[in-house]
Amino acid sequence: MYKPITLKDIAIALDLSPSTVSRALRDTYDISEKTKKLVNDYATLVNYQSNPMAAGLRSKKSKSIGIVVPDLANSFFSQAISGIESIAEKEGYHTIISQTKDSYHKEIEVINHMANRYVDGLIITMSSETTEYTHLQQMHKSGLPIVFFDRIVDEINTYKVVCNNFESCYKATTQLIENGKRNIAFLANAPQLSISKERIGGYKTAMTDQLISSRDELIKFCPSGGSDYEEVELAIKQLMALDESPDAIFVAGDRLSMACLRAVKNLGIKSDELSIIGFSNVDIIDLLQTPISHIRQRAFEMGQISMTMLLKIIETKYPITDFETKVIDADIFWMEHLSV
Amino acid sequence: MYKPITLKDIAIALDLSPSTVSRALRDTYDISEKTKKLVNDYATLVNYQSNPMAAGLRSKKSKSIGIVVPDLANSFFSQAISGIESIAEKEGYHTIISQTKDSYHKEIEVINHMANRYVDGLIITMSSETTEYTHLQQMHKSGLPIVFFDRIVDEINTYKVVCNNFESCYKATTQLIENGKRNIAFLANAPQLSISKERIGGYKTAMTDQLISSRDELIKFCPSGGSDYEEVELAIKQLMALDESPDAIFVAGDRLSMACLRAVKNLGIKSDELSIIGFSNVDIIDLLQTPISHIRQRAFEMGQISMTMLLKIIETKYPITDFETKVIDADIFWMEHLSV
Repeated sequence: MYKPITLKDIAIALDLSPSTVSRALRDTYDISEKTKKLVNDYATLVNYQSNPMAAGLRSKKSKSIGIVVPDLANSFFSQAISGIESIAEKEGYHTIISQTKDSYHKEIEVINHMANRYVDGLIITMSSETTEYTHLQQMHKSGLPIVFFDRIVDEINTYKVVCNNFESCYKATTQLIENGKRNIAFLANAPQLSISKERIGGYKTAMTDQLISSRDELIKFCPSGGSDYEEVELAIKQLMALDESPDAIFVAGDRLSMACLRAVKNLGIKSDELSIIGFSNVDIIDLLQTPISHIRQRAFEMGQISMTMLLKIIETKYPITDFETKVIDADIFWMEHLSV
Repeated sequence: MYKPITLKDIAIALDLSPSTVSRALRDTYDISEKTKKLVNDYATLVNYQSNPMAAGLRSKKSKSIGIVVPDLANSFFSQAISGIESIAEKEGYHTIISQTKDSYHKEIEVINHMANRYVDGLIITMSSETTEYTHLQQMHKSGLPIVFFDRIVDEINTYKVVCNNFESCYKATTQLIENGKRNIAFLANAPQLSISKERIGGYKTAMTDQLISSRDELIKFCPSGGSDYEEVELAIKQLMALDESPDAIFVAGDRLSMACLRAVKNLGIKSDELSIIGFSNVDIIDLLQTPISHIRQRAFEMGQISMTMLLKIIETKYPITDFETKVIDADIFWMEHLSV
């Protein structure tokens, strides 16, 4: 069993009392410089670390924060994590990451584990399965600093960071219509997610404003978010089998976009038959056979802002009551065959 | 500041002594069933969690393990993490993940933080910057269970999991030569990494066995591992400017393979001019414009084996002296234009 070097080990090795060692390490006035040097040199030699579990119990500060995301294989999340870490590192905070794999039960477990063990605060983006927030409401009520990003919870009053889901979907849908598309399908993640609601909202409003009636049969939900390929292929098949089949498809998720591309390829659908625009933060989108039009979220920046907000809550001396939801613009990239 | 519900809070709320509450929760014989039910029901209601920091100090077991990887944006690592978690979850272990971004200093910091705070063991793949292992040797010597995967440390005697780097590179190089290639360049990650050494070894031995002299000018190192695109483009430019420029290139890293593809595209090099084979676990390789031949590691399986090995060390009653290095075959996928 692993046993870190303790104060007592140092005391025995140097033939001093544990209390002398402790005071030498804390640099108190009553210990001679000679003893301090002896103790500190030896502590460095044996790689002594003051026991942070015990220290954590005393100070109740661990200088570490937890990051909870649905899926590490999703580029958007790995980029956001890098943004969070860029600020955390500068401010001397450790980051601990866990993924929920979009499972509600895993989310509860991960959050309980992090909150009760060692973190000063959490940055969370919700699992797609979650429809009930008691586990977070209790933590939040008892004072654990929480910041939500991307997939947020309306019911909990704290700092939040999202991309301009509504506006970017409104803008992209309007552009598709101006490009002559009329039957625009919409492929979304789980319906209960905040991002799904906002993105569909933008799409529907754009359709209405352009006097095109949005048909429910053109909207398909893929709760697995693209990690289940079959689900996506089935949705595309059903859409293409409609009497009025789509001439464009709007894909409202990162892994969903890549699964859609694969389905379109496997089903032999030509790119002049079906225009695609999708949310995507994939780094190699320029190397794809069909470099689709895409909406890229500023993931790194969203991560940075989330961490800055979390620090505000952790380090405040007075309770914060006036929480902000920061909305960050996404960037829309149109591929040539569409913009013409 | 976040304050979890304590034993004392429950005692006050129910007008019992803390000691009664504690014994009721521990189900001791001297507390009535009625009181036990009262305490347990209330504890559930307020989401009471026994203080695991204090519990951790007592039992020295946290039922959580740490995973340290260089880069979460690399598909190989996110797939390996999923493999680790699939076993951890089944065995009731939490997983905590950190990335080093291939920095030696970040690696030391992350490992110290995890080891001294809350994990029962570590699964590590080394940062490309690391050339010195004191930080790990000390932890290992003091008894912290460690398993290495992918980028391992020869100097530390413990369980290790690697792919058959030498053999798969030997096999792939031999196939390139049988396909008529003679000037095969080799693009590698940092030279000190175990994977770089093994992969170059396989390539060089295959060349020698096929009576082709390997030229040092054809071997280029990109210590950033592909995260610095300029570094990769420069290496490709230098290779193509050689008097005897390469007719094939072997790319010994995941992100390196994608950076190489981008460089080849940006430099306008035709695919019949330069064959490419690279290590890659990218999920959308079939959607690329140039679906290159690639070596895919069984990342998920490697993760599963790493976790199984770590559990062996954590849960053993006797010191283990006979450690194994498990070698897992990689799968080679040849694209048509090469295999003909």
